[in-house]
Amino acid sequence: MSRTVVASATRTIVIGFDQPFCVIGERINPTGRKKLAAEMVEGNFETVKKDALEQVWAGATMLDVNAGVTSVDPNQSEPPLLARTIELVQSLTDVPISIDSSVPAALKAGLEVCKGRPLVNSVTGEEDRLESILPLIRKYDVPVVAISNDETGISEDPDVRFEVARKIVRHAADYGIKPEDVVVDPLVMPIGAMGTAGRQVFHLVRRLREELKVNTTCGASNISFGLPHRHGINAAFLPMAISAGMTSAIMNPCRPQEMEMVRAANVLMGTDANCADWIGKYRDHAPTHDVPVGPVGEAMASSGGGRRRGGREARRVRTG
Amino acid sequence: MSRTVVASATRTIVIGFDQPFCVIGERINPTGRKKLAAEMVEGNFETVKKDALEQVWAGATMLDVNAGVTSVDPNQSEPPLLARTIELVQSLTDVPISIDSSVPAALKAGLEVCKGRPLVNSVTGEEDRLESILPLIRKYDVPVVAISNDETGISEDPDVRFEVARKIVRHAADYGIKPEDVVVDPLVMPIGAMGTAGRQVFHLVRRLREELKVNTTCGASNISFGLPHRHGINAAFLPMAISAGMTSAIMNPCRPQEMEMVRAANVLMGTDANCADWIGKYRDHAPTHDVPVGPVGEAMASSGGGRRRGGREARRVRTG
Repeated sequence: MSRTVVASATRTIVIGFDQPFCVIGERINPTGRKKLAAEMVEGNFETVKKDALEQVWAGATMLDVNAGVTSVDPNQSEPPLLARTIELVQSLTDVPISIDSSVPAALKAGLEVCKGRPLVNSVTGEEDRLESILPLIRKYDVPVVAISNDETGISEDPDVRFEVARKIVRHAADYGIKPEDVVVDPLVMPIGAMGTAGRQVFHLVRRLREELKVNTTCGASNISFGLPHRHGINAAFLPMAISAGMTSAIMNPCRPQEMEMVRAANVLMGTDANCADWIGKYRDHAPTHDVPVGPVGEAMASSGGGRRRGGREARRVRTG
Repeated sequence: MSRTVVASATRTIVIGFDQPFCVIGERINPTGRKKLAAEMVEGNFETVKKDALEQVWAGATMLDVNAGVTSVDPNQSEPPLLARTIELVQSLTDVPISIDSSVPAALKAGLEVCKGRPLVNSVTGEEDRLESILPLIRKYDVPVVAISNDETGISEDPDVRFEVARKIVRHAADYGIKPEDVVVDPLVMPIGAMGTAGRQVFHLVRRLREELKVNTTCGASNISFGLPHRHGINAAFLPMAISAGMTSAIMNPCRPQEMEMVRAANVLMGTDANCADWIGKYRDHAPTHDVPVGPVGEAMASSGGGRRRGGREARRVRTG
């Protein structure tokens, strides 16, 4: 049973197969958000503050923090900006942090200021990345996200991606880093471009769990890239991935549909003890879509027919 | 690869692991619906008509038809009523029928009038049921739902339920009925009463698929019995069960949230070729919940910040 421990100064979270799904809030990230990038460069952190509070309010277990503003020399500009952003986020919230950068110097700067035991996002199977990131992971004794691509790019063959993950876990072990401190991202492909992407990732997650015994994460919304009504696809993907053994995702917790499906999956996997979180959240829920539909919907509604209650719905649990 | 073929006079449907999930509309059923039962006894089929059209419009693959109005002597009253209801439903729609009764004489009356190749719902592992139902299944060469309980009731032990299913498949084989014509209902327990009910049924479905190689079905809404916001639990349960190998469910197709998750699961399992059904259905979807939430939601909305678009969401598919 792999248990990845992350912590802020005051709160410890375990990522694991017997734990509620770990939702890593993705929003504090200027990549592709020009306005946010410009604000952060100017030292304006109002949007960062809002994103931090909003995500925790919406149910994020952890917050990913990225300060990758486009810059001529990220090795110079990103380390102090990432450190400052982490300090700010930790002054506002008590959830553990995922320090997100492709710049090793920025990861180091983040690790120096971050309280508790953050997750580092990320290392790949590329040799130079392994050699620059793993010593930091060892030195600061923190867990790391391992992305299953290497010098050859992202393989469309899930078995190749599995082998990349295995390679990273082995390299980590060479540095004295335990498998439970490697959280593998098997890489989610867009289902609109590759019809096997769903089954592929569920199979990979199951293998990673059963064979490497590691926790897993992913950028969940990738699955729906290019399709209409992406939230619907994301919302089904999450419980399916969770039932395959996925234990965390980097996602937007401010999407009610996706978070509802994560909470329901926790109930169904037995990690929401006594359904307490579900009942607390949805006790007074009035679904907006719970109305008759179709050409006869209005007739149904006016006649009062069609809506049935408890007793009948339970009938399929038969006895004798 | 188990393929269960059902048909109306003009439409053939295959239930199978490589097929879109088969949604068996549950609503034409007077059990627990006093008003509907009274109407049907009086020969008023207006609600039945509405339920038939509404369910097909909402996306039902098949329609379950039950005429089990409470009666002193169902052996006398149910057969003609079930036959009449089936004829009516088949005059309005072209989807295959699931003939639903616990009265063998009613199943027989239904089978005599039903066009195409209906599914019979159901037989259990009880000896007297097997001996009264399986000869009918053989005679009419139709598939049957096999519910995994027997004389001892419903076991809470999924291994016992698996053995009951195996017993029914074996008995069916003795009558010359092939495994692909036995659709096993592993019985879904309420998760609110039994915290292991979800993992248990996913495990059972996987075993039924891999070991017995049979298609499966269930009364999906049982899982959420007793909990608030049942549709949310049902909506997560369906994709999880589908990814475990469940190939059909007896459910209410008029619930948009559940049907959306079934359609998304078809996309993710690769059974919605080129996502054509999804794109056709949701091309113009405007999610009602897609708004910023939380204490800072209004500030976010008025500032225009926070909502991001395509490019950034795709960034996690990295190259190199």
